[in-house]
Amino acid sequence: MGAKIRMSVMIEKYIARAQRVQSLLCVGLDTDIERLPEHFRHDPYPQFAFNRWMIEQTYPYASAYKPNLAFYETDAGLAALKMTLDYLHEQHPDIVTIADAKRADIDSTNLGYVRSVFDWMGFDAVTLNPYLGQEALVPFLERGDKGCIILCRTSNPGADEFQNLMVGERPLWQVVAERVAHQWNTRGNCMLVVGATQPAVLREVRQLVGELTLLVPGVGAQGGDLESVIRWGCNHNGLGLIANVARAVIWADNPAEAARHWRDAINGFREF
Amino acid sequence: MGAKIRMSVMIEKYIARAQRVQSLLCVGLDTDIERLPEHFRHDPYPQFAFNRWMIEQTYPYASAYKPNLAFYETDAGLAALKMTLDYLHEQHPDIVTIADAKRADIDSTNLGYVRSVFDWMGFDAVTLNPYLGQEALVPFLERGDKGCIILCRTSNPGADEFQNLMVGERPLWQVVAERVAHQWNTRGNCMLVVGATQPAVLREVRQLVGELTLLVPGVGAQGGDLESVIRWGCNHNGLGLIANVARAVIWADNPAEAARHWRDAINGFREF
Repeated sequence: MGAKIRMSVMIEKYIARAQRVQSLLCVGLDTDIERLPEHFRHDPYPQFAFNRWMIEQTYPYASAYKPNLAFYETDAGLAALKMTLDYLHEQHPDIVTIADAKRADIDSTNLGYVRSVFDWMGFDAVTLNPYLGQEALVPFLERGDKGCIILCRTSNPGADEFQNLMVGERPLWQVVAERVAHQWNTRGNCMLVVGATQPAVLREVRQLVGELTLLVPGVGAQGGDLESVIRWGCNHNGLGLIANVARAVIWADNPAEAARHWRDAINGFREF
Repeated sequence: MGAKIRMSVMIEKYIARAQRVQSLLCVGLDTDIERLPEHFRHDPYPQFAFNRWMIEQTYPYASAYKPNLAFYETDAGLAALKMTLDYLHEQHPDIVTIADAKRADIDSTNLGYVRSVFDWMGFDAVTLNPYLGQEALVPFLERGDKGCIILCRTSNPGADEFQNLMVGERPLWQVVAERVAHQWNTRGNCMLVVGATQPAVLREVRQLVGELTLLVPGVGAQGGDLESVIRWGCNHNGLGLIANVARAVIWADNPAEAARHWRDAINGFREF
């Protein structure tokens, strides 16, 4: 079990929102410009036009939004993302924003990403890759006002190539989970990414990390075993889990309907 | 020793340039906007103005330029980076361009980065993080026209936290080196990042990967043992090494002089 730690502003914000709207749903704004419906493409910032509409449709059911930065890496794309964040800050300041960036560079170089993601765009949290180690990520980790969500066991095919390598008696993802929970988290602002595709891994991670918050992508997309994901992923308060649904909401015929469906389906398995 | 493999366009381009100007020097365009001299700040695109001047000063001695994307992650920053690439393509099309992005996402999501880095900005190569495995990185790896430079042993303090974990008899970085050299490199477009701070590691990597090209950051910055880095890092042709110098060139009083110094210092230890 994790030692008692203080909690970052970002995690408090998530819990407050999750309780207010009774939802653990995070909507993944994976706004692939090549998939946008025709009528958004005439806007000067098509991705922002789409995101604003998507937020209007889904916000009553969402506790977090998570754009993946891979879809925004042009000058116009970053401008649209910044506009999306400005819109969220203005209209829904209580909803958590997560930059799915999977960043990691060496020490002070990370300051460039910190300034961009936390200070310029104003995200509440960012996803990070552990391969360079804790010391490299200090510019992120020392931001007690923000959230640092470190990749542990990802949901993609082939994730086992390195993440499941045995280090002594344990797979690498377990070493990452324990380090992050028990050594990196001195400011209470660390979380872990654990894919929904392997509920058994999620259960093991939950046992290793106590009450730590987990970001779980892949909910909805791959079908998967939602009951196991929710029962095993939540902590003792029926919280501690950010359940990301991307394509199954944003490309749905009726995103509002889809978001409500996923919120309710998740709540159906929560124990609280 | 690595099996005989065909060689990507990008690596052929590097070799041709390295032989033409007798240089293994890569200049790291880590153009931190907060460190720019006052007179560049009045330009509408300060980072581009600085980069253009830096390229004018250093191109006779450089075989590659490597901007780190952490310094460009705003809309204006990405625009300046795109302008830098356009300028290089027009003025110096034979110099290799490397996006130091350290990216990795899950499968098709990587297409966003591929489009941005390879197709929109037109970089010849990109640095990648191995934690998600080969299958995740296929959208990069299948680009035989481009270069994929995978993090193996990085130069930062604390890099050993995960990279040196023992997997059976071998540290994790060795497993990464062998996988990349012998399984991922079916198109001859893979390379590895190995920091200059640990020349003994560089020697071991060279023994494991045959003629594979290595990107070695940290040359110049930390002082370090240049002779060992060059002698142990080069392959049998006195090539196979991209020696990155960033701060020691771009923040030098006389960048042209500094670039020439580093090119010559590196050549002093090459055996060719």
